[in-house]
Amino acid sequence: MKKLIISTILLFCVIYLTDGQRKTINLPDLPGYVTLKCDFHIHTIFSDGNVWPTVRIDEALRDGLDAIAITDHLEYTPKKDYIPVDHNAAWSISETYAKERNLILIHGTEITRKMPPGHFNALFIKDANLLAVDSVMDAYKAAIKQGAFLQWNHPGWRSQEPDGIPKLYPAHKIMLEKGWIHGIEYFNDSEFYPLVMTFCKQYNLTVTANSDVHGIISERYPQPDYTNRPMTLVFAKERNHDSLKEAMFAGRTLVYFRDILAGKEEYAKPYFYQCISVSKPFHQTEKSIYFEVVNNSDIPFYLINGIAGTPGSITLAANATTRIVAGSKVQFPLVYDVRNIITGEKEVLKVELKY
Amino acid sequence: MKKLIISTILLFCVIYLTDGQRKTINLPDLPGYVTLKCDFHIHTIFSDGNVWPTVRIDEALRDGLDAIAITDHLEYTPKKDYIPVDHNAAWSISETYAKERNLILIHGTEITRKMPPGHFNALFIKDANLLAVDSVMDAYKAAIKQGAFLQWNHPGWRSQEPDGIPKLYPAHKIMLEKGWIHGIEYFNDSEFYPLVMTFCKQYNLTVTANSDVHGIISERYPQPDYTNRPMTLVFAKERNHDSLKEAMFAGRTLVYFRDILAGKEEYAKPYFYQCISVSKPFHQTEKSIYFEVVNNSDIPFYLINGIAGTPGSITLAANATTRIVAGSKVQFPLVYDVRNIITGEKEVLKVELKY
Amino acid sequence: MKKLIISTILLFCVIYLTDGQRKTINLPDLPGYVTLKCDFHIHTIFSDGNVWPTVRIDEALRDGLDAIAITDHLEYTPKKDYIPVDHNAAWSISETYAKERNLILIHGTEITRKMPPGHFNALFIKDANLLAVDSVMDAYKAAIKQGAFLQWNHPGWRSQEPDGIPKLYPAHKIMLEKGWIHGIEYFNDSEFYPLVMTFCKQYNLTVTANSDVHGIISERYPQPDYTNRPMTLVFAKERNHDSLKEAMFAGRTLVYFRDILAGKEEYAKPYFYQCISVSKPFHQTEKSIYFEVVNNSDIPFYLINGIAGTPGSITLAANATTRIVAGSKVQFPLVYDVRNIITGEKEVLKVELKY
Amino acid sequence: MKKLIISTILLFCVIYLTDGQRKTINLPDLPGYVTLKCDFHIHTIFSDGNVWPTVRIDEALRDGLDAIAITDHLEYTPKKDYIPVDHNAAWSISETYAKERNLILIHGTEITRKMPPGHFNALFIKDANLLAVDSVMDAYKAAIKQGAFLQWNHPGWRSQEPDGIPKLYPAHKIMLEKGWIHGIEYFNDSEFYPLVMTFCKQYNLTVTANSDVHGIISERYPQPDYTNRPMTLVFAKERNHDSLKEAMFAGRTLVYFRDILAGKEEYAKPYFYQCISVSKPFHQTEKSIYFEVVNNSDIPFYLINGIAGTPGSITLAANATTRIVAGSKVQFPLVYDVRNIITGEKEVLKVELKY
Repeated sequence: MKKLIISTILLFCVIYLTDGQRKTINLPDLPGYVTLKCDFHIHTIFSDGNVWPTVRIDEALRDGLDAIAITDHLEYTPKKDYIPVDHNAAWSISETYAKERNLILIHGTEITRKMPPGHFNALFIKDANLLAVDSVMDAYKAAIKQGAFLQWNHPGWRSQEPDGIPKLYPAHKIMLEKGWIHGIEYFNDSEFYPLVMTFCKQYNLTVTANSDVHGIISERYPQPDYTNRPMTLVFAKERNHDSLKEAMFAGRTLVYFRDILAGKEEYAKPYFYQCISVSKPFHQTEKSIYFEVVNNSDIPFYLINGIAGTPGSITLAANATTRIVAGSKVQFPLVYDVRNIITGEKEVLKVELKY
Repeated sequence: MKKLIISTILLFCVIYLTDGQRKTINLPDLPGYVTLKCDFHIHTIFSDGNVWPTVRIDEALRDGLDAIAITDHLEYTPKKDYIPVDHNAAWSISETYAKERNLILIHGTEITRKMPPGHFNALFIKDANLLAVDSVMDAYKAAIKQGAFLQWNHPGWRSQEPDGIPKLYPAHKIMLEKGWIHGIEYFNDSEFYPLVMTFCKQYNLTVTANSDVHGIISERYPQPDYTNRPMTLVFAKERNHDSLKEAMFAGRTLVYFRDILAGKEEYAKPYFYQCISVSKPFHQTEKSIYFEVVNNSDIPFYLINGIAGTPGSITLAANATTRIVAGSKVQFPLVYDVRNIITGEKEVLKVELKY
Repeated sequence: MKKLIISTILLFCVIYLTDGQRKTINLPDLPGYVTLKCDFHIHTIFSDGNVWPTVRIDEALRDGLDAIAITDHLEYTPKKDYIPVDHNAAWSISETYAKERNLILIHGTEITRKMPPGHFNALFIKDANLLAVDSVMDAYKAAIKQGAFLQWNHPGWRSQEPDGIPKLYPAHKIMLEKGWIHGIEYFNDSEFYPLVMTFCKQYNLTVTANSDVHGIISERYPQPDYTNRPMTLVFAKERNHDSLKEAMFAGRTLVYFRDILAGKEEYAKPYFYQCISVSKPFHQTEKSIYFEVVNNSDIPFYLINGIAGTPGSITLAANATTRIVAGSKVQFPLVYDVRNIITGEKEVLKVELKY
Repeated sequence: MKKLIISTILLFCVIYLTDGQRKTINLPDLPGYVTLKCDFHIHTIFSDGNVWPTVRIDEALRDGLDAIAITDHLEYTPKKDYIPVDHNAAWSISETYAKERNLILIHGTEITRKMPPGHFNALFIKDANLLAVDSVMDAYKAAIKQGAFLQWNHPGWRSQEPDGIPKLYPAHKIMLEKGWIHGIEYFNDSEFYPLVMTFCKQYNLTVTANSDVHGIISERYPQPDYTNRPMTLVFAKERNHDSLKEAMFAGRTLVYFRDILAGKEEYAKPYFYQCISVSKPFHQTEKSIYFEVVNNSDIPFYLINGIAGTPGSITLAANATTRIVAGSKVQFPLVYDVRNIITGEKEVLKVELKY
């Protein structure tokens, strides 16, 4: 028996997630919805990526995702001398593999053109080969015909927009009029585009964040220094493909990368309150009142601009309880700006702490 | 705005818990009880430890504990040439410091004698100096008079029992008759004593696990390789000093170290079921049925001895969802032994998986 | 200026090796030779691996290797529905890529047959397609004709030898007579075969250790818990392809995995002395003599079986100086066994410490 | 035998440095000198620190230091209700402990006054109690009488200089005239003072960097995110107390913290060239020339301001080889600024790469 336990003790340091295990990302649901963690922009060897499609499923599970789209380029296939072009190959290879692992796989592809209109992902399609046509507008039309959600990728990508700022060209205005832009990336790989917040409000677009990974995801976002890959949080009615699609068209998303959360205030505000809870004071002196805030999420929150008598700034560390000491005469609720919850091009979320 | 966010992004990698922040250990409560994480055996410079008492409070918060006892030796004070002996000094220094940080501090001391009877901690006392008397039985009596919980420390400590096996000497039998042994350590520092499980059952003792730390706790249990220090999980009616004391005398504990949980089956079994949940099958083929087990705790569980048609062994990784593929004809519930939940000297917990 | 430096300070935590940077593995040379760190067994998508060939070059650089062989299976190409079979494809894709990064790339392939004779790598070949013939002996002959070094892979692989023990079948004896077995793996992935030490001595074979990686190397040997992938240390006259080949045929190798070094005593003994140096005593009392051993390598050495008056066991931590306290009357040299330097099926290296 | 090796393999993941083991910091010597890594500013429970003095020796060994000074405050002893004041106590407790571990211990104390003149460390003293006098100038005089090296601590400390900028008050000018300021801190804890570089040049002062640690050093500079504590690199003729003292008075130092090296160009320039070596080109095309730079030190170097035809910026990663691709017509040497080697208030080191 003693032997058995000793070996148990030694074993513990070699436990890593293996095939079929999905990390729990500690992020809450919204009332009435389940929070699906998604990456809608991923490459494989079937365009200019470096891994076989099933690797993307394994990576997604290990990273705790619920859904991914593999979106190889239609127009850029640099490995074609060795791998004959079939835009549905990654989908065929992965479909059953994902199903057996309870990962929602979205059939997608990237329509890859010069700016304007730039790169767009067609998501929830049925046959990518039908989108491989000359005219870009014909490609979008073919996607729409399949019921696609069209996502404008990295709209301020510096290879296409040297100043890093997304611009609405006539082509985009035409697409908007036709209802052919449904979503837009705020985070892509290590870039982000503040102006996207404004576009989302003006044109009622769904905000997304994706990795656009070409290499190995665990090397691009190495542990333990970095916390997570860029991901879109989708508030779906249920955890399945069709509910996810419905939520995407309905715009129920926030985006999450490193320690930043961004999106519409309508989702960001209740989400913050789902993450934290404020205790009654546990200690009081003549001068001070002591209470605690529990942050039950993987995201630290940086509160700033506290008023006199309260701490000027507070870090609510992730998965931790933070003690707050305020003046005994202070009026609740305490009001703060959350520096790392972005709700507009130049706005962060304003919150209230009360018990 | 862009500047602001960039600095936010860079900040994320230097966030550590600071004064007044308590890590969340992800371990569930039992219905009707709150799980308090406790360390009842700790030293400071007031005996042979190397740190000032308030360091122990800071360490406990950072490690996610709810309660600690500082238990300096009464009979061994090697620093007395520099630090005059006062067995209540650590308590006086720490009492307010702990209260302001919402950590439950237990007044304690270690009665440190040769084996038998060995070392005993007196916990929940009022004045340690009154226990510094010649006769060990008088010391226990003085502790009991203060309402103490007496814990037999490291009963098989190799410095006192070269074979590592705890033994019941006449002195212990006398103490048991008088009701002077309430608890006993199963884990102490890096040692553990399988026979303690038998003693707990035979004499109705409360099982405990403690660090017995003398140096720096974060160096003794360094991250990221090791997960946690030894701790006692106490199932208390509320999170306060008196509820904790009541639960200790009532024996409502489990012990936790590295990836091992141990204690009475009456608590271990419901605790396991609080940690995990089994999903309905998400996929089915002619040959196989696929379902998932969510482990919503920091403890991985190693299931072994699965019957034919089910996986022989399964690791339910901590804070993760594990996919299980069984034969389509298999009968639920699936029965397993949990190799790292110890319920007796030679017994591990038997569990059932069903959805 | 202050701004500049502050940003410098913040930058430091995001430094990872990037394209074209090679980690220094801290392992010494042998006098007259340069130590090349090599992996002679690697797969890509051109057989049953999961990554594009250039990924293997990037991995090797990051891991500090000097040379690798990509050795896709000739007889097992499960991705052929998507990737037409060309056994030289990985070589063509990688050759220039490796040259531009100063990594020695060896043209190789794996002749993949049932046991006996099992799997063999042909290394230093010129055209893998010429080896894709029916008869295994014809395949070997074609390899030899190209000047190949033939390595017996994982000779006790449990999929082919359920007891894990390598066996010399008649086919192997024929090959040995023809001089068609040049090397043999001691470490392969996470397996190892003690008996290989005996084969190496009896038949004068070159001992090797290789990863046999199919997936992502950094996920198979994750940091910071694990230190390194399995590798062959080759003592070459110079750091180039032809010197490496010469050394391999001459048998000048040791193998290294985790914290174990193994191989012929003739190389293991001087190698140990290149790694460590012993200082003169720095302190002396009536009872004790204090001296230091510097271990200037990435390998910790576990010394055991010390005689009376000296420490029974000593760990010479990697890249560290270890203080040794011996009795003042002790006779130098101190004699030890090095538990983690394997020189035979049942032998470890015996060493002497003297200043 | 197999058992033995397996247990060896498992052991490797629990190896940490233990008592008497000193980490190797990979930093080169200068020709004719040995580089001693030192921390001249450290507190214990004998003033306002939180650990027993021997802990500081253990920490220093584990961090790879050669020498430390324990410098408790003379004028600030907040623990005096529990610990009677004796300014030599930490020295008495540590002296033999350090000697037995081959760590150079310097007898020191901190003369702790309001600004001006602020805080000064007296190093290499014989009796700290003799410095505990009312007049600060008398305290300095008593130190000088014992042969002390006087170090101006954190001259721009924000608690004493709210703008963070050191200022030369009349008191300092008097001290400089008397030759009573020998050294000055550039790095202290997480602060640094650019103007110190100017003071060092104008008044020929020795630049130092120290931790000023009060709590646990491994928690203040946690691994693996941070690399090292602030330290002074002293170029001494030999590794002993008196050579160290001679070098300090002679001003042969550089300072090192995180990834920054700072000090006089006269030492910084040869030090950089000791750290790196440039290879001959290993590959050449019509357009490009490929060569490598080995950085054999723990410090990454960030080269900037490269001229046309060469990379604009290059990171020479620590303990790694970096490939450089330049235009084939480029003229050697390549000239760069090293952004993280500070040689003046507004200057960084200029270097040349040639093979």
